Amino acid sequence: MPATDLDQIVSLCKRRGFVSQSAEIYGGFRSTYDYGPLGSLLLRNVKEAWIRSMVQQRDDVVLIDAAILGPPQVWEASGHLGNFSDPLVDCTNCKTRHRLDKLDDPDSCPDCGTKNSFTEAREFNLMFKTQAGPVEGAGADAYLRPETAQGMFTNFANVLQTSRKKPPFGIAQVGKSFRNEITPQNWIFRTREFEQMEMEFFVPPEDSDKWYEYWCNERLNWYIEHGIPAEMVMLRPHDEDELSHYSTGTSDVEFKFPWGFDELEGIAKRTDFDLKAHAAASGEKLDYFDPQTQERYVPFVIEPAAGATRTMAAFLLAAYDEDEVNGEVRTVLRLHPRLAPYKVAVLPLSKKDTLTPLAHEVRKLLADRYMVDYDETQNIGKRYRRQDEIGTPLAVTVDFDSLDDNAVTVRDRDTMDQVRVPIDQLLSTVGEKLGF
Amino acid sequence: MPATDLDQIVSLCKRRGFVSQSAEIYGGFRSTYDYGPLGSLLLRNVKEAWIRSMVQQRDDVVLIDAAILGPPQVWEASGHLGNFSDPLVDCTNCKTRHRLDKLDDPDSCPDCGTKNSFTEAREFNLMFKTQAGPVEGAGADAYLRPETAQGMFTNFANVLQTSRKKPPFGIAQVGKSFRNEITPQNWIFRTREFEQMEMEFFVPPEDSDKWYEYWCNERLNWYIEHGIPAEMVMLRPHDEDELSHYSTGTSDVEFKFPWGFDELEGIAKRTDFDLKAHAAASGEKLDYFDPQTQERYVPFVIEPAAGATRTMAAFLLAAYDEDEVNGEVRTVLRLHPRLAPYKVAVLPLSKKDTLTPLAHEVRKLLADRYMVDYDETQNIGKRYRRQDEIGTPLAVTVDFDSLDDNAVTVRDRDTMDQVRVPIDQLLSTVGEKLGF
Repeated sequence: MPATDLDQIVSLCKRRGFVSQSAEIYGGFRSTYDYGPLGSLLLRNVKEAWIRSMVQQRDDVVLIDAAILGPPQVWEASGHLGNFSDPLVDCTNCKTRHRLDKLDDPDSCPDCGTKNSFTEAREFNLMFKTQAGPVEGAGADAYLRPETAQGMFTNFANVLQTSRKKPPFGIAQVGKSFRNEITPQNWIFRTREFEQMEMEFFVPPEDSDKWYEYWCNERLNWYIEHGIPAEMVMLRPHDEDELSHYSTGTSDVEFKFPWGFDELEGIAKRTDFDLKAHAAASGEKLDYFDPQTQERYVPFVIEPAAGATRTMAAFLLAAYDEDEVNGEVRTVLRLHPRLAPYKVAVLPLSKKDTLTPLAHEVRKLLADRYMVDYDETQNIGKRYRRQDEIGTPLAVTVDFDSLDDNAVTVRDRDTMDQVRVPIDQLLSTVGEKLGF
Repeated sequence: MPATDLDQIVSLCKRRGFVSQSAEIYGGFRSTYDYGPLGSLLLRNVKEAWIRSMVQQRDDVVLIDAAILGPPQVWEASGHLGNFSDPLVDCTNCKTRHRLDKLDDPDSCPDCGTKNSFTEAREFNLMFKTQAGPVEGAGADAYLRPETAQGMFTNFANVLQTSRKKPPFGIAQVGKSFRNEITPQNWIFRTREFEQMEMEFFVPPEDSDKWYEYWCNERLNWYIEHGIPAEMVMLRPHDEDELSHYSTGTSDVEFKFPWGFDELEGIAKRTDFDLKAHAAASGEKLDYFDPQTQERYVPFVIEPAAGATRTMAAFLLAAYDEDEVNGEVRTVLRLHPRLAPYKVAVLPLSKKDTLTPLAHEVRKLLADRYMVDYDETQNIGKRYRRQDEIGTPLAVTVDFDSLDDNAVTVRDRDTMDQVRVPIDQLLSTVGEKLGF
């Protein structure tokens, strides 16, 4: 049974060092989060799994890593300086501020109840602004990117020239983006600082619909292949009035969060909007000359854009399970082996010094290839429970027999089955069980 | 022969898609860089190699991933709001701005030559400032972190509680930091947006000197193990007057850059400065109770702090080589296999359709485990040269015999030796040659 209550996961994550509020010792910095020893590994594995599927296993997508800080020209051309804003109103009675388009009753203040107390709506841009360089003033303005996507468009000509790719091909990027959200909410689902996994796939305009279908299915399946039950995830096409300023069609991959189905990823037809806008603003040619047809055209773009931290939240919620072992409730995170923070735990049966050298030898052997936890505290049952709760797929126990038979016990998180394996076959057994 | 001229590397990196100026189509955004298809992979591999050595292979260091945005309290406590600044002067004649402590002659302007033309020196803080939340004003100030280190100190108590580590143990982090440098320079060596690989190692105060020696040697060796010739890298202890406000001793790992030996990494004794400062400012206890000695103490900290992008530059410079093949100059990047952007190139001998299906089968087989390039353009000699120039350790050629004998040719980048390998043994042969 996946978690039905967000608090189950939030509390497990805090208790076990996955996620906590940023600057927590100072009371927390609202809507930014720090990822602890387990959370940083899980988030990294989510991003690695995405890069593996979207870049490594394909021959038509390359990766880039563009800067977070950018000059105003980029965001003028993309439309973000003009369009990327929320309408805000102030209550003249209680001085609270609200997003006009989110109010149930646009005439009365939800805080103090006063009617007709709002100021005129003012557009509030969602981008974080700062100043770069030693001189203050307009020439030094810089923005923190609100999406990674524009880095792919400004690098389009560069990638075309240096990588010898031609449409259909994609440029992918994983990295942080920043939006000064008025209403951050639901833990790591909507935060001001967040991480994206985006890919711009450039295609001949006439193939745009075909590729849109292709990517909608690919992306939906990615979540299922990585362990989300098919009934917890679905594709939802946007209504006409939901579409962003650049899109002629978008479908969201939605996950069944405790508060209802909500977005993990959007797959959008961005047409040639961005390349044309940047070509017009920069004066550079951003198109493709096809040597076979002798035609020059501006490619259309299909964009699968996922949120890494909300995807991590979804994997945690879906993986959460409770069963009964020896009459006690066992909490277990049934995470896909590629996503699990640690792949293997090495547990010497006793803390006695006689087992320590061999246990560390086994740890070193495994740590050469995998992220490994080592735990020698408390009784073995409690240590199994602890590894189950953080999703470690395999536990290797070094016991007193190990000193004689040079073998160890490998325990499976999901079945709790145990097998005895000679240490010189341990790496291949673990590899087979994990699948890599 | 490593590169002696920075331009050799800058130009190769631009031509082959490693690194280019950010927002280049708009004339570039000064001192920020974008990492293209090859550069993003190389930078990622540098960071992965660091995490592998510093976290995965050890049992005394954990990873975290803290937020970039933070509230003023953190930077007041750390001393960055007070001390992290450069003295700036303006020339009243030609209106240029300069860093006073970097001027050869502090009395005359280096641009127009006028004597005694400077304004009074003004302290210019190096942190980027922005505003978070819908309300403008002092309460909403936020800073982009100028170092990742403070995230480890503010998470100290949290990690202690959730991970069951005890001193000596370390907290590591890899991520972006931002400094509004007045004089960014030398390509990706000093930039306003950069990436750090930092680790705070918490030890009993009396063991501080011992661990400082340990980490100085560990870190120097890390560069040599990853392919930098021993004579190009050295440890340089700081003079008393070079020390940062928090340090009682620092050694730099310096690399022989084309402009002379310069810093890749600093290993600093940070004492208990940061934990005590944050404890005082936040009111939280940031110390350790040792159950064996029944003593409570504030650990001392040894910090190895490296720059990821400048380390990438050093690996490129050191790996650069030219030799002669058939009377022609061959450019080759002799990168360590773990750092090379692609591990294997798959090259069908001819573009003829008969080879394509088998070549793609071989590509898929390898891409399941490794980052692979696939190239079917131009003659095979030119394609080998291209892979040599980007540092790909192995090239696999699929030829017409492959259709009969189900074997391929594996070519080594450094020796240029070729061996025939059955496809069903290809993965293990490649694994042995790469070492992973």
